[in-house]
Amino acid sequence: MGLTLGELAVRFGCELRGDAAVVVERVGTLAGAAPGDLAFLANPQYRSQLKGTRASAVVLDAAAAAECPAAALVHSNPYATYARIAALLHPEAPATPGRAPGAQVDASARVAASASIGANAIIGPRSTIGERVLIGAGCVIGADVHVGDDCRLHPRVTLEAGTRLGARARLQSGVVIGSDGFGYARDGRQWTKVPQLGRVRIGDDVEIGANTTIDRGAIDDTVIGDGVKLDNQIQVAHNVQIGEHTVIAACTGISGSTRIGARCMIAGAVGIVGHLDICDDVVVTGLSMVSHSISTPGVYSGGIPAEPAAVWRRLVGRLKRIDALAGRVTRLEQDGKR
Amino acid sequence: MGLTLGELAVRFGCELRGDAAVVVERVGTLAGAAPGDLAFLANPQYRSQLKGTRASAVVLDAAAAAECPAAALVHSNPYATYARIAALLHPEAPATPGRAPGAQVDASARVAASASIGANAIIGPRSTIGERVLIGAGCVIGADVHVGDDCRLHPRVTLEAGTRLGARARLQSGVVIGSDGFGYARDGRQWTKVPQLGRVRIGDDVEIGANTTIDRGAIDDTVIGDGVKLDNQIQVAHNVQIGEHTVIAACTGISGSTRIGARCMIAGAVGIVGHLDICDDVVVTGLSMVSHSISTPGVYSGGIPAEPAAVWRRLVGRLKRIDALAGRVTRLEQDGKR
Amino acid sequence: MGLTLGELAVRFGCELRGDAAVVVERVGTLAGAAPGDLAFLANPQYRSQLKGTRASAVVLDAAAAAECPAAALVHSNPYATYARIAALLHPEAPATPGRAPGAQVDASARVAASASIGANAIIGPRSTIGERVLIGAGCVIGADVHVGDDCRLHPRVTLEAGTRLGARARLQSGVVIGSDGFGYARDGRQWTKVPQLGRVRIGDDVEIGANTTIDRGAIDDTVIGDGVKLDNQIQVAHNVQIGEHTVIAACTGISGSTRIGARCMIAGAVGIVGHLDICDDVVVTGLSMVSHSISTPGVYSGGIPAEPAAVWRRLVGRLKRIDALAGRVTRLEQDGKR
Repeated sequence: MGLTLGELAVRFGCELRGDAAVVVERVGTLAGAAPGDLAFLANPQYRSQLKGTRASAVVLDAAAAAECPAAALVHSNPYATYARIAALLHPEAPATPGRAPGAQVDASARVAASASIGANAIIGPRSTIGERVLIGAGCVIGADVHVGDDCRLHPRVTLEAGTRLGARARLQSGVVIGSDGFGYARDGRQWTKVPQLGRVRIGDDVEIGANTTIDRGAIDDTVIGDGVKLDNQIQVAHNVQIGEHTVIAACTGISGSTRIGARCMIAGAVGIVGHLDICDDVVVTGLSMVSHSISTPGVYSGGIPAEPAAVWRRLVGRLKRIDALAGRVTRLEQDGKR
Repeated sequence: MGLTLGELAVRFGCELRGDAAVVVERVGTLAGAAPGDLAFLANPQYRSQLKGTRASAVVLDAAAAAECPAAALVHSNPYATYARIAALLHPEAPATPGRAPGAQVDASARVAASASIGANAIIGPRSTIGERVLIGAGCVIGADVHVGDDCRLHPRVTLEAGTRLGARARLQSGVVIGSDGFGYARDGRQWTKVPQLGRVRIGDDVEIGANTTIDRGAIDDTVIGDGVKLDNQIQVAHNVQIGEHTVIAACTGISGSTRIGARCMIAGAVGIVGHLDICDDVVVTGLSMVSHSISTPGVYSGGIPAEPAAVWRRLVGRLKRIDALAGRVTRLEQDGKR
Repeated sequence: MGLTLGELAVRFGCELRGDAAVVVERVGTLAGAAPGDLAFLANPQYRSQLKGTRASAVVLDAAAAAECPAAALVHSNPYATYARIAALLHPEAPATPGRAPGAQVDASARVAASASIGANAIIGPRSTIGERVLIGAGCVIGADVHVGDDCRLHPRVTLEAGTRLGARARLQSGVVIGSDGFGYARDGRQWTKVPQLGRVRIGDDVEIGANTTIDRGAIDDTVIGDGVKLDNQIQVAHNVQIGEHTVIAACTGISGSTRIGARCMIAGAVGIVGHLDICDDVVVTGLSMVSHSISTPGVYSGGIPAEPAAVWRRLVGRLKRIDALAGRVTRLEQDGKR
């Protein structure tokens, strides 16, 4: 499916520097593109690759356009513009309506005629599946679940009873939504399970990465706002609330009842303790431990870069004796006063 | 299903302050409860919500009871008491005995007549499934597995060959038990797989969270004691032993052959290195690295709270130069002696 | 299946100290072995168990052989030699060729007659499944996937469209290969999905642990080299490249576009940020954050061992005031110069 640069410039509001009749067929990287490919430059780290690109056209911003050896589609947000053009050049296969062999839909479920239920997928009692939804092979949808229009569930996703997905959600393989929260009451030397009775409610345009887990609420619901993007292997505990358009990278864990505001950016492998309140527009860098509420937007960090092991061992040794070091400084100060 | 406060007080050993004839129908949070709801107060962080609650009754301890605007069910352990009442008010649907469509049970397996085998679940050769067990849709139970009475496996759980589950285990969706341990012998520039020949043995009353993985032993078994509760996305390596009633929060990883004692509490995202011995009654706070054996009960920590990025960068810069700082102190001390 | 020590010594190039006619039937640990068992000693931590072993024979190196109370199979690499003997004594059940009930193979897929397709497994259009491959129950293989000869997929593995597995790969249960990478372009207050159009290409002899996830590339492919071993719950983001014979322990996350060299050893719960270049033969110890490229082989560390909580709190308090401490030292130095 080819598109001319002229069509693309008009459709996506780019300034075109080059021949409007040139056709691009597919996307490519600056370094790997061949004629017929459209590339993009957004991360300055890759600017050195611009000069040598064989792409037929490049999406970039005005500052970089002068160095472009090919036709340039100039836009102030080249990455988002590239994303839109790529979606147009490489459209997803539409869901084939109907039920694949082995799919089992409970008699009380309501499934839109335009929805596609994959091989061996299970749809539970009273659940509703919206228009053009794609349920991948081997998914298990429990009772009383709602899946909004145009959702796409990759294979082997579990939605436990009561889960609600808004429109256009995309869940990668292995996702589990609505598992029991980790609630146990100490009871002498043992632990008694606290029934987990809430649900998980997920807004529109949410994407959830492979093997990510979101627990149902204990009493009230766990809530994921519109436009939230969660990467792979994230853990969201019971009664967490995540505000609109917040993005969270892989391997991060969020403990119970914590509220995260809108438009936050949480990097990978962050740990956020429970019962906190993180305000809107907070950025947390990778491998940080967030153990207090945050009420001021801004960037927060807690990770320490690795060092050669010998250097690190010495540094840790010093750190463990920092109390003694401080004591020596205090003694020197006292000596100085005498 | 309503219950009177009088019945609840007698059944759970509470002191009732209020009208014994009042009926509660369901549970609610202090903040969200409506008339007919039973709430609880256990975490002092939520005490301020007590005054305004619309719940018909609240489970709490004697110290808080005076402030309670509704009927009070007073107990020294309000959280465990709440848990028991909630289980009574909101009973789980019993498993429907029999095999759902698509379930495949090997001819040599023994499945109790009262057990429920979900849609498309697989039960392997010579495995035994106890009374009233619920095997969720899409579960895969390998050969020679034993599942004790009253276990509940949520959808899409894998029990590899030889796994043994005690009674009343509850496994959330995506759990994998009995995967091969990570054993490879260096062999020149390559790695040779070390066959993983042990099993996983799990005691009674164990709960395991979504997408948690427990590897089989290399020769001997990996062993999880009675009453252990594991949260989501925990990794338990081969030959680990976890003592009775230990609880472990999400995203924690335990390396091979480490033994953890009884009644420990390990928080989230903790990393425990291999071949260690952690004694009974140890508490480890979140994001800690446990790299030595622990022989004294108590609380251990290793996480550093995040800071605003500019503060943190400065702090890390100082930390990386701590050796130089110590050297400067030594020189000052030497100067002082001259 | 018994084997004489004489046969084993010849076959695996060991020096035999003891009776060549002794037969071993199975493997055991030094501490747990019974007569008829073969044990091994490789980790010096377990040397004290050698003296009391009841094993019929022990694989060990020359230095330890003198203390061995049983027959000794002496080899300079006892662990790899043990691994080979164990594989011989405990051979894996061969795959039963054919399709189990409920398996669905697309008419356009090519499946070797010697391959075994498990119960309820799905093979998508145009995919090719090699000789003697074992596809476990409930696996979902998408379109245009290639699975090389002698691969073994445990139950419930997902290979998304376009994934290529070399020969002899072994994937544990719950693995997801080819999920979408985490690519979104900021677009005002929202995020626009960047289509993820690349694939995942995996070399020969690769092993991948339970619930590990590997994302497809954004444009180019994500590439895992020959002989790579990945433990459980590892996250490999889009366009990562991992060099030959690198091993990575559980819970580690590798961010997008990072390249890791050959023969690296990455321990557990390590976080590696994106767009880095890690050279060959790098070792990273557990819980480290790698935030810069590494161009020198060697060992790198970043984890801080946990302490008793009271000690740790004091230490963190001092660390947070390290700037003030440095200032005090500077003032002392200035005072000294006056």
